Amino acid sequence: MKIALIGLGAMGYPMARNLARDHEVTVWNRTTALAERHAAEHGTRLARGLADCSDAAVIITVLPTSTEVDTIVEHLAGDLAPGTLWIDATSGDPIVSRATAEHLEKIGIDFVDAPVTGGTPGAEAGTLTIMIGGSEAAFIRAEAVLRSCGRNIFHVGSVGTGHAIKAINNAMLAANLWIAAEGLVSLDKQGFEMKTALEVLNVSSGRSNVTENLLPKRLVEGDWPLTFKLALLDKDVRIAANMVHHQHLASPMLALVSNLFTAARRTLGEEADYIDVVEYVAQLSGESLKRQ
Amino acid sequence: MKIALIGLGAMGYPMARNLARDHEVTVWNRTTALAERHAAEHGTRLARGLADCSDAAVIITVLPTSTEVDTIVEHLAGDLAPGTLWIDATSGDPIVSRATAEHLEKIGIDFVDAPVTGGTPGAEAGTLTIMIGGSEAAFIRAEAVLRSCGRNIFHVGSVGTGHAIKAINNAMLAANLWIAAEGLVSLDKQGFEMKTALEVLNVSSGRSNVTENLLPKRLVEGDWPLTFKLALLDKDVRIAANMVHHQHLASPMLALVSNLFTAARRTLGEEADYIDVVEYVAQLSGESLKRQ
Amino acid sequence: MKIALIGLGAMGYPMARNLARDHEVTVWNRTTALAERHAAEHGTRLARGLADCSDAAVIITVLPTSTEVDTIVEHLAGDLAPGTLWIDATSGDPIVSRATAEHLEKIGIDFVDAPVTGGTPGAEAGTLTIMIGGSEAAFIRAEAVLRSCGRNIFHVGSVGTGHAIKAINNAMLAANLWIAAEGLVSLDKQGFEMKTALEVLNVSSGRSNVTENLLPKRLVEGDWPLTFKLALLDKDVRIAANMVHHQHLASPMLALVSNLFTAARRTLGEEADYIDVVEYVAQLSGESLKRQ
Amino acid sequence: MKIALIGLGAMGYPMARNLARDHEVTVWNRTTALAERHAAEHGTRLARGLADCSDAAVIITVLPTSTEVDTIVEHLAGDLAPGTLWIDATSGDPIVSRATAEHLEKIGIDFVDAPVTGGTPGAEAGTLTIMIGGSEAAFIRAEAVLRSCGRNIFHVGSVGTGHAIKAINNAMLAANLWIAAEGLVSLDKQGFEMKTALEVLNVSSGRSNVTENLLPKRLVEGDWPLTFKLALLDKDVRIAANMVHHQHLASPMLALVSNLFTAARRTLGEEADYIDVVEYVAQLSGESLKRQ
Repeated sequence: MKIALIGLGAMGYPMARNLARDHEVTVWNRTTALAERHAAEHGTRLARGLADCSDAAVIITVLPTSTEVDTIVEHLAGDLAPGTLWIDATSGDPIVSRATAEHLEKIGIDFVDAPVTGGTPGAEAGTLTIMIGGSEAAFIRAEAVLRSCGRNIFHVGSVGTGHAIKAINNAMLAANLWIAAEGLVSLDKQGFEMKTALEVLNVSSGRSNVTENLLPKRLVEGDWPLTFKLALLDKDVRIAANMVHHQHLASPMLALVSNLFTAARRTLGEEADYIDVVEYVAQLSGESLKRQ
Repeated sequence: MKIALIGLGAMGYPMARNLARDHEVTVWNRTTALAERHAAEHGTRLARGLADCSDAAVIITVLPTSTEVDTIVEHLAGDLAPGTLWIDATSGDPIVSRATAEHLEKIGIDFVDAPVTGGTPGAEAGTLTIMIGGSEAAFIRAEAVLRSCGRNIFHVGSVGTGHAIKAINNAMLAANLWIAAEGLVSLDKQGFEMKTALEVLNVSSGRSNVTENLLPKRLVEGDWPLTFKLALLDKDVRIAANMVHHQHLASPMLALVSNLFTAARRTLGEEADYIDVVEYVAQLSGESLKRQ
Repeated sequence: MKIALIGLGAMGYPMARNLARDHEVTVWNRTTALAERHAAEHGTRLARGLADCSDAAVIITVLPTSTEVDTIVEHLAGDLAPGTLWIDATSGDPIVSRATAEHLEKIGIDFVDAPVTGGTPGAEAGTLTIMIGGSEAAFIRAEAVLRSCGRNIFHVGSVGTGHAIKAINNAMLAANLWIAAEGLVSLDKQGFEMKTALEVLNVSSGRSNVTENLLPKRLVEGDWPLTFKLALLDKDVRIAANMVHHQHLASPMLALVSNLFTAARRTLGEEADYIDVVEYVAQLSGESLKRQ
Repeated sequence: MKIALIGLGAMGYPMARNLARDHEVTVWNRTTALAERHAAEHGTRLARGLADCSDAAVIITVLPTSTEVDTIVEHLAGDLAPGTLWIDATSGDPIVSRATAEHLEKIGIDFVDAPVTGGTPGAEAGTLTIMIGGSEAAFIRAEAVLRSCGRNIFHVGSVGTGHAIKAINNAMLAANLWIAAEGLVSLDKQGFEMKTALEVLNVSSGRSNVTENLLPKRLVEGDWPLTFKLALLDKDVRIAANMVHHQHLASPMLALVSNLFTAARRTLGEEADYIDVVEYVAQLSGESLKRQ
């Protein structure tokens, strides 16, 4: 099947490679160099312009935000054949993706939102979790295509629900991370070894993916790699906050964590890793958890 | 060894039974009926008054709060032989327990705070996690005694650190629970099946002990048992909030969750289960997650 | 001058009367009875349909939210002569009003947002504060018209800025009200007379319009009238919260107060007065400030 | 009457001068130079040690926190004659002052807490607001003494209530200040003139002492003097937060503002003025309200 994958970032690059095993994959990227490298390394077809993607049966977008997706849709949609399937694997905004889907539906194009989780390792191994929102028929088509990328592929509801649960998941991640940081700053200042503290918490009821899998590397091994930008997590938490706002729900904790992440992003900058908020939490109290 | 266990609640009752396998255990409880039953069922010795506990080499308190522990200490300490070890397995307040330890030290009694986690099932199976604060020597004595109660026994630091990490753990549990509730109310209102939503979250980065082990029973099976009182979790979160206040840390999320749990407790009452806050979160938005 | 005033609520009704002293005023209201009464009492012209408003040189909307304004614009705009001035005195959403203004500009109609503050007494006395957003030329026209309604008429900036500062003002009102309530619940529970407490605060640095002018009537005199619906203040605070969200600002307190007001509205209902949140704050702690 | 005034800070210095008009005033200060200057300038008696204060009929403490008061009480109380009146004009902690009063009562010394508000200008002009907690008899004695210092002298309740309402007042000041800052950052970023924005707000319902009297100097005139340390306001807000915690109230906004002020203090340092939090709020969003 002819597939065009648009957006060769940390997730899109390895996804395109996995898809290329079974399909004719055309790749497009804003900075062409990455697309050229992908074509050279993985035998994909280099799109010289977006128009080169228009003969694909399936368009897959893997972009930073729904804004970039919107721009691509605007440029490309008119050239697509009716019956094309558009899979948006961006961590996008359900409010935007519902509008996009409606727009595309009028010209006969099926849209599913299909955000992924699992990080670059999951994308490389083809073991991503993928949460798909869209019609039953579109889901079936999307799942068949994405099978080489993901191990857990869920049909979670109508268009937008994929983006919705991704946003909520990331808001939960953000809150779990922030409260763990507050707790560990307190324990650190009381003289706890971080290794012991995390071991205890991880056999106790307050444990989470954050304490089990994310913090030991940073707080025990002292290794603070860049794995996922704080700016992107802030974007996701803001999508969740905006969504619950429009649902008119009372969500004081989500509102708080969204505003605190924005403050952290303003202070730490656009290049910071999302786990660096742990150090920001410490700084708010004049402390530090980064050991020299 | 002669051990006196004071407080036969949901945790103390099975702990006394496990200890009785290897030791001569005297049991005392505020309402005597429970102690009588324990003596009858498990061959422990019934204390007719606190004074009957004074010949024990080890006193173990398992009480609702440090206030009750203080009262017992006041009544009993004068009668204890120097060298007695006091193990406080209450989920207590480190500020109080440090004062208690200082007081007891003057009369030659060693004190460790040794709160536990794992719930009644863990207490029954002898697989509790136990976090002990105290001197190295006192820890060694306490660990030997508690081996029949717990699988993971940690020496986390000086007196008070056991209570400190227990409080922080429970504050993390509370926050993880609250943010999960806010997220799930949003998803529920968008038409998600709770089963699907939890399945997706549990293979995603926002997962926690709350989403993996606590919520499926309530939100998927519709079974809302009483396992741990909201009033007790509120007490624990308040201990954590008070502790970070006295450390003069900036902990906005812990402060928020503490005040929200207090509001939930005031609304749901003293008999509510801690997971009922999920329903309280829904009510704040005029919604419900309890299915008829 | 021919003026059409649309929306005869608590503010619009007396505003139309004041305008009728100097102008030919046509009145329209969703439920016609109010418009009929106005025409009978104040000699205004009854609009049998929105079309009857189309010959006015100035349209003034005074509606609950920007949504109702949008609907009216949609029905009426096509019938208006180029050069008509549209004054929106609704407490509206700047994001919506900017879009509305752009739409109207294309057909030659000037738009200003001109929300008011001062309550029904101010509307009756013609002493409202009016904050106008729009071009300099449109402001001059609008000010001339509104002179009979307001004492302080400000040109605050371009279209949307009137709604923006109104929303921010009301968010400040909401926060000042909430923190005063939290403080007074604490003092009440310590045995303070509310009369004394407010007297002291009102010669101290924590005083605000809330403590000086709003709370004595309720907390000292025990008179809790319906003056302004909580549902409308919740709407205004939500406009402010949404605005700062789209500005990508870190505003944790505004976010919190917005979510707490939503919870209060869900609990107290659509007919509650905004000062009733004081009692809601008390209820969160199991207390009450309403004396029998 | 013989009065000893202990603590010649920004408030104590002018208070001692006013008292010296009608009384024999002995002054003591931790750094002696200030006391020497006071004696030279205002004819007061220089205490070479705390013992020199012991012959006074009235002791007045005006110190940074209750901790310093406690230290002075410990050193001095034993030397005082029964019947001495101790007036603590510190912005202290009601929990501490109740304990102090109980201690002093046992040796026949009356204690009132009498915190003041009105700033250095009010202290100099003798127009302070003074809120007194204590017995009716002690209040009558204290009021007679303090008449030369204050214009509004209130008997607010039993011991501790003066400190309690002062703490609540300052917490309200802090919250009113913070929300005003959030709102003004939003308006500033939308292009509002701060002069216009404050003029509008000050004839609107969101106005407070903060918008009317404190912010124009800084945001319009660009003058940011040091009038009252952020560190001291943080201390007061923390007293309020601790007090409502021990009352077991749900006070989410007070909890939030307390933690945010602590973060501001950690970032801006011990010498910052309390109004500088406005700039801190701006910084959280990467903005600034201080014009060059």
